[in-house]
Amino acid sequence: MEVTFLGTGAGMPSKLRNVSSIALDLRAINRSIWLFDCGEGTQHQILKTTIKPGRIEKIFITHLHGDHIYGLLGLLSSRSFQDGHSPVEIYGPAGLQTFIETSFKISHTHLQYPLDFFTVNDNDVYIFDGLKVRVKKLTHGIDSFGYQVIENDQLGELQVDKLKSRGISPGPMYQTIKSQHVTTLENGETVKREDVIGPDKPGRIVTILGDTKQPTQFVDFVKNSDLLIAEATFASDLPSLAEQFFHSTITETTQLARLANVKQLCLTHISQRYTAKDQLDLEQEAKAQFTNTQIAIDLLTLNVVKP
Amino acid sequence: MEVTFLGTGAGMPSKLRNVSSIALDLRAINRSIWLFDCGEGTQHQILKTTIKPGRIEKIFITHLHGDHIYGLLGLLSSRSFQDGHSPVEIYGPAGLQTFIETSFKISHTHLQYPLDFFTVNDNDVYIFDGLKVRVKKLTHGIDSFGYQVIENDQLGELQVDKLKSRGISPGPMYQTIKSQHVTTLENGETVKREDVIGPDKPGRIVTILGDTKQPTQFVDFVKNSDLLIAEATFASDLPSLAEQFFHSTITETTQLARLANVKQLCLTHISQRYTAKDQLDLEQEAKAQFTNTQIAIDLLTLNVVKP
Repeated sequence: MEVTFLGTGAGMPSKLRNVSSIALDLRAINRSIWLFDCGEGTQHQILKTTIKPGRIEKIFITHLHGDHIYGLLGLLSSRSFQDGHSPVEIYGPAGLQTFIETSFKISHTHLQYPLDFFTVNDNDVYIFDGLKVRVKKLTHGIDSFGYQVIENDQLGELQVDKLKSRGISPGPMYQTIKSQHVTTLENGETVKREDVIGPDKPGRIVTILGDTKQPTQFVDFVKNSDLLIAEATFASDLPSLAEQFFHSTITETTQLARLANVKQLCLTHISQRYTAKDQLDLEQEAKAQFTNTQIAIDLLTLNVVKP
Repeated sequence: MEVTFLGTGAGMPSKLRNVSSIALDLRAINRSIWLFDCGEGTQHQILKTTIKPGRIEKIFITHLHGDHIYGLLGLLSSRSFQDGHSPVEIYGPAGLQTFIETSFKISHTHLQYPLDFFTVNDNDVYIFDGLKVRVKKLTHGIDSFGYQVIENDQLGELQVDKLKSRGISPGPMYQTIKSQHVTTLENGETVKREDVIGPDKPGRIVTILGDTKQPTQFVDFVKNSDLLIAEATFASDLPSLAEQFFHSTITETTQLARLANVKQLCLTHISQRYTAKDQLDLEQEAKAQFTNTQIAIDLLTLNVVKP
């Protein structure tokens, strides 16, 4: 489970940061890649990664501002050109279907694959292969949502002492025992997995919030995330601008991370007023408030691990 | 009068070529910049040039395929963010207004400037400050148009011999005499400009064709262009693909240039099947058929001059 930031800037592209998009690489879990938001130029950023558009199976849109959706048209079209045949599901606020279908009709675009739309609502839960997704409505002037991806709990570790005490030496048989409920050994004895395995390991939790103001409202939703990705459009010295434009500051988002017992925080949707030479200052400011924090840059990849 | 290629590839972006857009820099004539087509990522390409989006006053769309229009949404939005207040006029086939207005409504985009739409038809002529534009319908399966920009004829050269023979020595007075119909000298004599100036110099002609097959149909329209920019999606060995997909080959487009007495040819909308290492081969192939030819690359700038 890896996250790659395809665009980390707010509002419009700059030389430093493209507009919003995040890829969640689930190839190790269910062979797919999901996108969260798809600003203009997302397909161009994907050209710089190992992501094949045909692997993108779900796209979650946090809200309908242009810097989060204008890249959908080109990405979905190019995916069709590139022999993407598997369906794509698009989750987000109402309006995406009209945007895409109107644009495709006018541009005479005919996809080679089905496109399915799902309008999300506060507190929705979607169950998928190996994962579930929770939805939370945020506060951004227009409908804006956060998505929480929760990996299914994983089998615990085999308890080697117990296996050895039954005379089963380490080897390929251990994997066989772990992979099924009951295994019959060569000597005719049976081994129940539940007798020789430790407790389930909880799945990883990745929370991706769309644009919002006053993010500490969402402590309950974010609670115990292994990775929280959230906006910090403004540095800590501009709370009134953040309030005015329904955005968050570094202070506000790091406070959310602290209150919600987040393990790792990555801040994104950085105002284009901040240039490359501000990156270090922003990161120092953020780390002073929440140690395990990064300011995302385009093409940064994070491996999501349980601490 | 300069042309900058913002995107020179067909269909979808690659690392080498973005999708279609061309900037015509008319700042020396009427302080404005015009765009021809606006594929996704056009605003990103503009970040690499000296073009200020606020200076873009007219956008001509050749046809409605996505690789020629999907960049309009972001470019127009960002122009508004960047304090672009002057109006923008958009010329092209019917459908652009619905595409843009539907998308802006859904994305809650409110421009700070007026947007005016003009639906073009075969043989239209538009008269602008210092230039006129002719429109030609092409052959591309869907409505596709070529645009010809014709600079107004320019005043001829002052005939220095005639001025000297009247006792007027070279100096700032020459510019004064050229700038008005009648000038009164210090000694009370009057000089009529028409008596001391050579014939008008014809304005420059730049023709930009959208996607089309069988381009030699348009010899009359293209005739005597100082610069012809036209598609050659395929090399000369793929005429049947070109025919099938309503595109042109290098052979077909260079033939148009020859028949139409074009001074300079630049080929664009190059299939993404051709990589960087093919560029030299394509250019040699084109030059062998029409000497003064280039294969456009992204960010190439050409100065348009009368030979």
